[in-house]
Amino acid sequence: MGLHVKLHRTKGHPIITAATQRRAGVPMVLIYGHYDVQPPEPLELWRTPPFEPTVRSGKLFGRGASDNKGQFFAHVKAVETYVRTSTPLPVNVVFLIEGEEETGSFALAEFVKRRGRALRPDYIVVSDTGMFSKDHPSITLGTRGIAALEIRVDGPSRDLHSGVFGGSIANPAMVLTQLLAACVDADGRVTVPGFYDDVIALTAMERRELAQLPFDEKAYAKLLGVPSLAGEKGHSTLARCWARPTFEINGMSSGYQGEGSKTIVPSFAVAKISCRLVTNQQPRRIYRLIERHLRRICPKSVRLTITEGHHSAAQLFTCNITGTQAAARALARVHGCDPVFVREDGSLPILDDFKRWLGGEIMLMGLGLPYDNWHSPNEKMDLANFHRGIAVSVELLRELSKPGQTEHRTRPSADGGVCFNCKMED
Amino acid sequence: MGLHVKLHRTKGHPIITAATQRRAGVPMVLIYGHYDVQPPEPLELWRTPPFEPTVRSGKLFGRGASDNKGQFFAHVKAVETYVRTSTPLPVNVVFLIEGEEETGSFALAEFVKRRGRALRPDYIVVSDTGMFSKDHPSITLGTRGIAALEIRVDGPSRDLHSGVFGGSIANPAMVLTQLLAACVDADGRVTVPGFYDDVIALTAMERRELAQLPFDEKAYAKLLGVPSLAGEKGHSTLARCWARPTFEINGMSSGYQGEGSKTIVPSFAVAKISCRLVTNQQPRRIYRLIERHLRRICPKSVRLTITEGHHSAAQLFTCNITGTQAAARALARVHGCDPVFVREDGSLPILDDFKRWLGGEIMLMGLGLPYDNWHSPNEKMDLANFHRGIAVSVELLRELSKPGQTEHRTRPSADGGVCFNCKMED
Repeated sequence: MGLHVKLHRTKGHPIITAATQRRAGVPMVLIYGHYDVQPPEPLELWRTPPFEPTVRSGKLFGRGASDNKGQFFAHVKAVETYVRTSTPLPVNVVFLIEGEEETGSFALAEFVKRRGRALRPDYIVVSDTGMFSKDHPSITLGTRGIAALEIRVDGPSRDLHSGVFGGSIANPAMVLTQLLAACVDADGRVTVPGFYDDVIALTAMERRELAQLPFDEKAYAKLLGVPSLAGEKGHSTLARCWARPTFEINGMSSGYQGEGSKTIVPSFAVAKISCRLVTNQQPRRIYRLIERHLRRICPKSVRLTITEGHHSAAQLFTCNITGTQAAARALARVHGCDPVFVREDGSLPILDDFKRWLGGEIMLMGLGLPYDNWHSPNEKMDLANFHRGIAVSVELLRELSKPGQTEHRTRPSADGGVCFNCKMED
Repeated sequence: MGLHVKLHRTKGHPIITAATQRRAGVPMVLIYGHYDVQPPEPLELWRTPPFEPTVRSGKLFGRGASDNKGQFFAHVKAVETYVRTSTPLPVNVVFLIEGEEETGSFALAEFVKRRGRALRPDYIVVSDTGMFSKDHPSITLGTRGIAALEIRVDGPSRDLHSGVFGGSIANPAMVLTQLLAACVDADGRVTVPGFYDDVIALTAMERRELAQLPFDEKAYAKLLGVPSLAGEKGHSTLARCWARPTFEINGMSSGYQGEGSKTIVPSFAVAKISCRLVTNQQPRRIYRLIERHLRRICPKSVRLTITEGHHSAAQLFTCNITGTQAAARALARVHGCDPVFVREDGSLPILDDFKRWLGGEIMLMGLGLPYDNWHSPNEKMDLANFHRGIAVSVELLRELSKPGQTEHRTRPSADGGVCFNCKMED
């Protein structure tokens, strides 16, 4: 395709850049992607082998089909479309592809810190989120942040006979459950003092508009296999996922876990915690609040160890700037309807590094579906979405070459799309 | 030794009986022991190999040295003493030795049910408990019962991405911690309604006498490696271990337990629970109380499964009957001081079966020490205790041949020994 391709060795997996010949006077568009994927296990649940791409009913099945090779490849095909039709590219393009997205993007963070200035993008396009539904082209204006930690409660120096010693000492597993239960109440509200201090509440108008997005609670509960949905009281399911922080136990371990029973007082108990954070919450402050809360309530009869894990801040973008508006026009042209502006429930920590070291406007534009089975067996991408994605990218590159148009779009879609940010800035 | 030895095949490990020639007109004494031991792991913590008995500083080290081979063997040597000195045995003796004590005594329970009537013991001697200390020959008048159960909380049908789905559904690990934390309060009191209903409280006099038993809280805490002792408020450490029921988490498991973090909402969470029970508490009633309590407070957004585990009732014996008084005299003669009457913190489920199918008076007379490292590395038996144990057994067999003496001994020892039961019957 005539691009200048370079493989950059790192301490981890290599990074690839592929750049068009740089032309003066047109914007530089960086398109991010990752070639690493989640492990395919459990293999027995795949209908066709994860690494033998297979088309069934207009869908391409395979690990990485949607996360992230399929979505990213649509942009490659868009650039190829210009090249093969001898149409001059309206912008400069550089593809930036990493191999560690699923494990922390450590090499890429280092790479953009050291070499980012050479790239100097005006726009950064990331298609590593999902569309709201197949009928809702989507632009993601926010991601949640994360603060991870591990809590360890140590009691006796070894597992003890629960008959002989039970009743005389604190049970570390019981202390751990009491500590954790003191972090979330029966209404799903986090009870760590100060936890919600910096959360910017959704306005009544935002909540109203959010409620208009089509969302079938029953179908969603069935899909996840739960008897009913649950979470922080007083907030709709979408609001809880997009705009409210959480306190989740990711794992928990103590004592005997085999078949049958072993009557011991376990020596220690461990829990892995991660909090999803929303804009304005500082991950390190949240960590310190939790640590202080736990230390205050933990009895003196055990030893408490709290270890800080990875963390990243939530991101919130505005929809009334050039790149995002260009993306909205591109999506509208291809899909025949305006996009909805949504938030992503997950975290994209590399955005922190992009913001800090690259500059440029970040646009999150998912081309896959929320039910493409990311991280699960039978991952797929609908070929219709893939082809629409190519068309969207072709349009986007053209739109980004035009001078900035900063219309303020508060309700860009007949389906009830809503930009939280513009609302907040009202 | 001229005994009639028989190996009885079972579905599990074989049972051995070894009987003296039966004489009419003298009592039948059944002496119980077990040849199975706990696994020796962790092997690296043993100073000498667990199955190569080694004497160091007057102590015999090896797995089973105290639990139960050493204690039991003292009785064998006592019978041998009579045989080798051509002294007629004052009683009939049958040794009953099993190989499944550490794993539930299933074969022995079946054996005594089917064949117990043929044994018809007047007395059953069990040396499978401990002395209060090396200076306190002890008779154990009570054991705690047990009610085991497993609690499982199921949420989504698979582990889910905690970013994408966190906040929309209940976290099964968090629900489990909330359920468990609702079973014991910060004062160490079990909060399951009705849990303490059938507990017979210690009288003020019993508590006072119990308090006089020498017990160094600091040394005990140091031995177990805990910062401080803990447990149900308002009860001394010994009272908590001997005369109060407990609710212990033996094991707990959920989600990701490896290195680092994995941001998921786990599909399910499990806890293994066992309650130690005291006299008058019915294990199955306790199980039902816990089940009802958990079902009442568990949210509808998860599925709760509670499975009943093994159970046995607490035992309480009185000290003012023939066999126990004979044991007290034997101990006093050898040790030069009266024994203390104590309770055992653990459970001996086979006693239920002995009571039901064998009849006879059960006497629990520990010959080993509480710090003989039962179930732990470097298990040992002090040879001084072993030799005193032989002498005690020789005296005991003689005392048991005498007609019943039913003195009422409320305070048999200058060291503050106390019989709870006689007190209760006052």
